Amino acid sequence: MSSPATTITVDFSHAKLASRNYEIAIAPQSLPYLGKKMMELEIGKKSKKVLVVSNPVIFKHYGTTVTTSLQSVGYEVADLILPAGERYKNANSLQKIYDAALAHRLERGSTIVALGGGVIGDMAGYAAATWLRGISLVQVPTTLLAMVDSAIGGKTGINHPQGKNLIGAFHQPRLVWVDPDVLRTLPAREFRTAMAEVIKYGVIWDAELFEQMLQSKRLDQLRYIKPDLLFAILSRCARAKAEIVSQDEKEGNIRAILNYGHTIGHAIEAVTNYRLFNHGEAVGLGMIAAGAIAASLNFWTEAERAKQQILIEKAGLPQQLPTDIDLHEIVAALSKDKKVTDGKVQFVVPTTIGKAMVTDQVTADTVSKVLTQNLTP
Amino acid sequence: MSSPATTITVDFSHAKLASRNYEIAIAPQSLPYLGKKMMELEIGKKSKKVLVVSNPVIFKHYGTTVTTSLQSVGYEVADLILPAGERYKNANSLQKIYDAALAHRLERGSTIVALGGGVIGDMAGYAAATWLRGISLVQVPTTLLAMVDSAIGGKTGINHPQGKNLIGAFHQPRLVWVDPDVLRTLPAREFRTAMAEVIKYGVIWDAELFEQMLQSKRLDQLRYIKPDLLFAILSRCARAKAEIVSQDEKEGNIRAILNYGHTIGHAIEAVTNYRLFNHGEAVGLGMIAAGAIAASLNFWTEAERAKQQILIEKAGLPQQLPTDIDLHEIVAALSKDKKVTDGKVQFVVPTTIGKAMVTDQVTADTVSKVLTQNLTP
Repeated sequence: MSSPATTITVDFSHAKLASRNYEIAIAPQSLPYLGKKMMELEIGKKSKKVLVVSNPVIFKHYGTTVTTSLQSVGYEVADLILPAGERYKNANSLQKIYDAALAHRLERGSTIVALGGGVIGDMAGYAAATWLRGISLVQVPTTLLAMVDSAIGGKTGINHPQGKNLIGAFHQPRLVWVDPDVLRTLPAREFRTAMAEVIKYGVIWDAELFEQMLQSKRLDQLRYIKPDLLFAILSRCARAKAEIVSQDEKEGNIRAILNYGHTIGHAIEAVTNYRLFNHGEAVGLGMIAAGAIAASLNFWTEAERAKQQILIEKAGLPQQLPTDIDLHEIVAALSKDKKVTDGKVQFVVPTTIGKAMVTDQVTADTVSKVLTQNLTP
Repeated sequence: MSSPATTITVDFSHAKLASRNYEIAIAPQSLPYLGKKMMELEIGKKSKKVLVVSNPVIFKHYGTTVTTSLQSVGYEVADLILPAGERYKNANSLQKIYDAALAHRLERGSTIVALGGGVIGDMAGYAAATWLRGISLVQVPTTLLAMVDSAIGGKTGINHPQGKNLIGAFHQPRLVWVDPDVLRTLPAREFRTAMAEVIKYGVIWDAELFEQMLQSKRLDQLRYIKPDLLFAILSRCARAKAEIVSQDEKEGNIRAILNYGHTIGHAIEAVTNYRLFNHGEAVGLGMIAAGAIAASLNFWTEAERAKQQILIEKAGLPQQLPTDIDLHEIVAALSKDKKVTDGKVQFVVPTTIGKAMVTDQVTADTVSKVLTQNLTP
């Protein structure tokens, strides 16, 4: 491995919930070494049984590599392939994981390996959280979004027919194993989508990452991202997420800043029936709005807002809402957001590049004005 | 309240998982004061919504008292009545709780109150553990078994069609509220069954409780138990369970002694298809066997074993297996127990009255011999 490689140790020693620490390891062409690493970490010391949960496309590309890697060091591997897509992140798929766990006789010392994107990671993670009241979990994220976001932090869960992520648990993985080379098979739109979350980390936590990204001519496709920048993105975002969640393992104060761009983003998704924009695209629009709100209330400067806009443009993310959207609906949808406390919308605003805070000083009027001025043609 | 009353604070400050401490409050005629107490503890400070989960018989007896108690201090109460019985502790009932949580719009600061025995406590507790990744839980146990055992310790879960308690989570309640007066409506067999677990606490943890019980002429029905003894049983067992689990919140070393009598007990239940004996009766038989094994291997004395036998007799628990049971099947069933590590059965044996340890020195031969000598006519 001549390319940069790193291991980030997520330190939970000072967290409210003293979960054990775990490693986020990032290295190109590392997928074949997963089994060896798990052995080193004594994962499955008391039971060699492993259930790999994946989806058809990912397992076709990487299933053999992962299975061979695990078997070659002595793990007894079974796999379960679940259909891809958010709409399958439900109780039915979960039951299939439980059934596979039973069929493969997973014990308390056994391990579930989640090989896939956020949907697989959330479901397999939740099954690991709840099978025999919790067994070991290894996250092998295969999408950029999972690598920088969902695989880190311990949030697991499934959807209720009437709402996303309503059912879940906090369950930290024993290891997060990131091989950037698997991103070559990631569809371009999914790459751009994830870039919205990457930009978010720059804005709320990591000014240096933000500046590095500004130096890149384009951010919209993997092939335009130089290896050093890709490595910076993966390691700095993982570190940011890990630092934020380890300071606040259960959702509380500091973790709330991770919702930057998400409050208005969720409202846009809801109003457009989750069809027009995917999650990252909606978050990009949400950041444009939140950044403009922050500038209009003097939380950060107009120049900082403009720099954020440049990154969103370089990432090829949408910068405007379609003309037929009723902006009032978006404002109305805000009040249904999960983050509402006592009727006040909790808003995350940047205070400079690399720092953010939560405020309840944002009125519906301000939101309306900013949406009109910044997200319509 | 002229009768004895107590509050036990479960101290998790030194536990591996630094869960918040919580109170186990025991007081006769305290049911109408549940709401007031919850307010004092600031349960639901951020959301007044409460979902009471119960079963038809219990809710008929105590539903109005509990609901009124909660409403009178400002809680917004909804209830969900689930059918009684272990066979309903499944994914279907769980889904009904989630649906009720959604219908009543439970938020992160809302509370689930489990009003019932172990089945209700386990299911409602698991729903509270997983709804929005964990909301507040108050246990109001209405059976002796739930009061001394299942409501304390944070184990929650449901059954998989092919195995009990395979799906679950650790989730500590904010409060356990015990009103001994509700035991008046408890069927006699359920009372005796729970007494097996009470005797267990005496043997493995609390010699003083053991001696107090020996002073009682009978232990098989509530009306033979003097108020002071009942209070000692409830408070000492709750304290024992709380001490044991707070020293070892996740199932590990010390908590394993709670399985005293359960290893052979589970095997007896399995071999008799869960029909002949209920759980407590099987545990009673398991304790007879484990006590005899301990005596034969000189872990404790023959005199101590005999005293345990007297308690089991006073509790009106069965002391023999039916003649048509194949003892070899019980020995074979032991190897399928969840507590097997590397093929060795982990056995809990008392080392004196009030102390126990785990050993793997018990051979199948010893078990066979003891079953023949102690559990057959």
